[in-house]
Amino acid sequence: MTQALTFELEAECPWSGARAGRITTCHGVIETPVFMPVGTSAAMRSMTFEQVDDCGAQIVLSNSYHLYLRPGHELIEEAGGLHRFMNWKKPILTDSGGFQVFSLDQLRRITEDGVYFKDHRGGKEHFIGPARSMRIQNAIGADIIMAFDECVKNPATYDEAKAAMERTHRWLDVCVKAHERPDEQSLFGIVQGSMFEDLRKQSAEIVTAHDLPGFAIGGVAVGEDRNTIEEVVAYTTPWLPRQKPRYLMGVGTPWDIIYAIKCGIDMFDCVSPTRLARHGSVFSNQGRISMRRGQYARDFGPIDDECECSTCQNHSKAYLHHLMRQREIAGAILMSIHNVHYLINEAQVARKAILEGRFQEYFTRWSSAREHLERQ
Amino acid sequence: MTQALTFELEAECPWSGARAGRITTCHGVIETPVFMPVGTSAAMRSMTFEQVDDCGAQIVLSNSYHLYLRPGHELIEEAGGLHRFMNWKKPILTDSGGFQVFSLDQLRRITEDGVYFKDHRGGKEHFIGPARSMRIQNAIGADIIMAFDECVKNPATYDEAKAAMERTHRWLDVCVKAHERPDEQSLFGIVQGSMFEDLRKQSAEIVTAHDLPGFAIGGVAVGEDRNTIEEVVAYTTPWLPRQKPRYLMGVGTPWDIIYAIKCGIDMFDCVSPTRLARHGSVFSNQGRISMRRGQYARDFGPIDDECECSTCQNHSKAYLHHLMRQREIAGAILMSIHNVHYLINEAQVARKAILEGRFQEYFTRWSSAREHLERQ
Repeated sequence: MTQALTFELEAECPWSGARAGRITTCHGVIETPVFMPVGTSAAMRSMTFEQVDDCGAQIVLSNSYHLYLRPGHELIEEAGGLHRFMNWKKPILTDSGGFQVFSLDQLRRITEDGVYFKDHRGGKEHFIGPARSMRIQNAIGADIIMAFDECVKNPATYDEAKAAMERTHRWLDVCVKAHERPDEQSLFGIVQGSMFEDLRKQSAEIVTAHDLPGFAIGGVAVGEDRNTIEEVVAYTTPWLPRQKPRYLMGVGTPWDIIYAIKCGIDMFDCVSPTRLARHGSVFSNQGRISMRRGQYARDFGPIDDECECSTCQNHSKAYLHHLMRQREIAGAILMSIHNVHYLINEAQVARKAILEGRFQEYFTRWSSAREHLERQ
Repeated sequence: MTQALTFELEAECPWSGARAGRITTCHGVIETPVFMPVGTSAAMRSMTFEQVDDCGAQIVLSNSYHLYLRPGHELIEEAGGLHRFMNWKKPILTDSGGFQVFSLDQLRRITEDGVYFKDHRGGKEHFIGPARSMRIQNAIGADIIMAFDECVKNPATYDEAKAAMERTHRWLDVCVKAHERPDEQSLFGIVQGSMFEDLRKQSAEIVTAHDLPGFAIGGVAVGEDRNTIEEVVAYTTPWLPRQKPRYLMGVGTPWDIIYAIKCGIDMFDCVSPTRLARHGSVFSNQGRISMRRGQYARDFGPIDDECECSTCQNHSKAYLHHLMRQREIAGAILMSIHNVHYLINEAQVARKAILEGRFQEYFTRWSSAREHLERQ
């Protein structure tokens, strides 16, 4: 069997768990650590994929739940797969739909086979379980696909967390068997266990007992505070195999990413860059700033003097402030470009520091420069 | 005195009034006939200026009324002018604000000096007249600026049209005297007269008696039917000097543009490409089509096989249909790119036909191919 994915460890930090690597997929190479922008419904919010590409994105994420509902995985298959449908030639990762269906407010019924749920828009009843998620993701055709897991709400009791974790493990067995395109698509297993260290350990053991091409930590950044996230990431990451890519799902902020890189995480995704941009907030080395503030009305400098994104190269804060005040879509576009570039670049700068053996110095300088700021 | 604008006639159609030319400004050359995309508030709706540039735009239009209100012409002056403020390095044209203030529903008072009006958002009272419009446009710094005119509603009585026209002429005298940057900015006069041929003739004589670098036809496409527009353009255009650029304000549709080119018009502007795109409509050689229609859900071809815009090169109708259904901003972006490119390209194709002495053939083929379609 051809391997759909290979991972090469290029450097490891002697001071921390941080590492730099290269993931090779059928659609190209991903240099890690890497931030993956999220194009939920086969589109980035307020950006074209050309612009995402210009931001330096190496891989994008899309959501199976949304694609299954609209336009439907069969239509995407008919189009020749998601790469062709949305015209993104580099690697793609899809999640399983588990996180979304378990986040739905609408009445749902969980059985051993999966979850019955109502469309968040149409009201019609649908079903997704591990086998069906594999069928959906095989049709969509992303390079990396995720196991169908149960993500408990936070806070969860020990018993709830344990039951969800055990179901996640049983569902992983189903996923592994149901996955029909292992030559082209790489299935990652997901470690659950909520905020309980012994469950996380148990989950890591059981999930990584499968010979899968990569592993993820799920069920974090679901409402808990930052210290708890850091704690869970810090103890769980070392239990994941050194020779496989490690993905921290749904994280995060500039701070979370640097911290998780230090723990040995390789891959990140989050909708925050585009979501914040639509509300006028941008990442900067001075913390997160709102371009709506009156103080920027006559500020003719860029968001960040050192930023190499096309927005900072071409536009002033005064202009962006004006666009936000006028509710011009161009404002959301330009600030999304900046924010997406910011997180992609942050991961790349950390990577360079790891490769050059100066991650300790980089991390120390980075965190002390930000100590006086709210950890954005 | 240096000339801020020169116009060179390159070719004239022996069969019609159509002509090809080159306008040279301080910010570069404009090949005519030309379609000018509109960036009302120093921004294109749902496009970046990089994307506008990629569509082949040679000049963009911006609205003084909107810029005066927000962010204010003084702020733009402080930023170094509109080119720098919005980072568009090619030529810019601003209108005078006349059309907007006369379109306002809010109570207004017209005096010999100008118009008192209420901000369409804030409710505060403002004043713009010919002298103030020149001050505003001089501060904004566009390459081509427009005289402050009174545009009557349609339908207007003969007396209303005559009074407005005469005021427009008196205001033109004020504009010519008040314009402070003739070395860098070229003031165009505007012919009014509503739908009355004798008034249009009189207006053309009086306005073109000023030695201005270019002239415009105002007060068309304000609600009248297409035949009336065509009639007014057909008789008015030949009264404008042959050696100066001619601009038909606020027009228009693919059909209007071709017809006006035949009459001898050189410049066009309209918000329709981006406005239609936001509602899911795209121009095509099969007429205007709505990408919302279910028939496109599985249509994996581009909007137009021959279109060279980046949307048609990269995306299918099925994908665009999906984006519209999902209300993704990327849909508005991609369809705006197509529509803006479509009108720019249409004018360029007509230009080529004029230069190559085959405009008659081009026009005849173009109009007969569209005879069975609603004149979009």
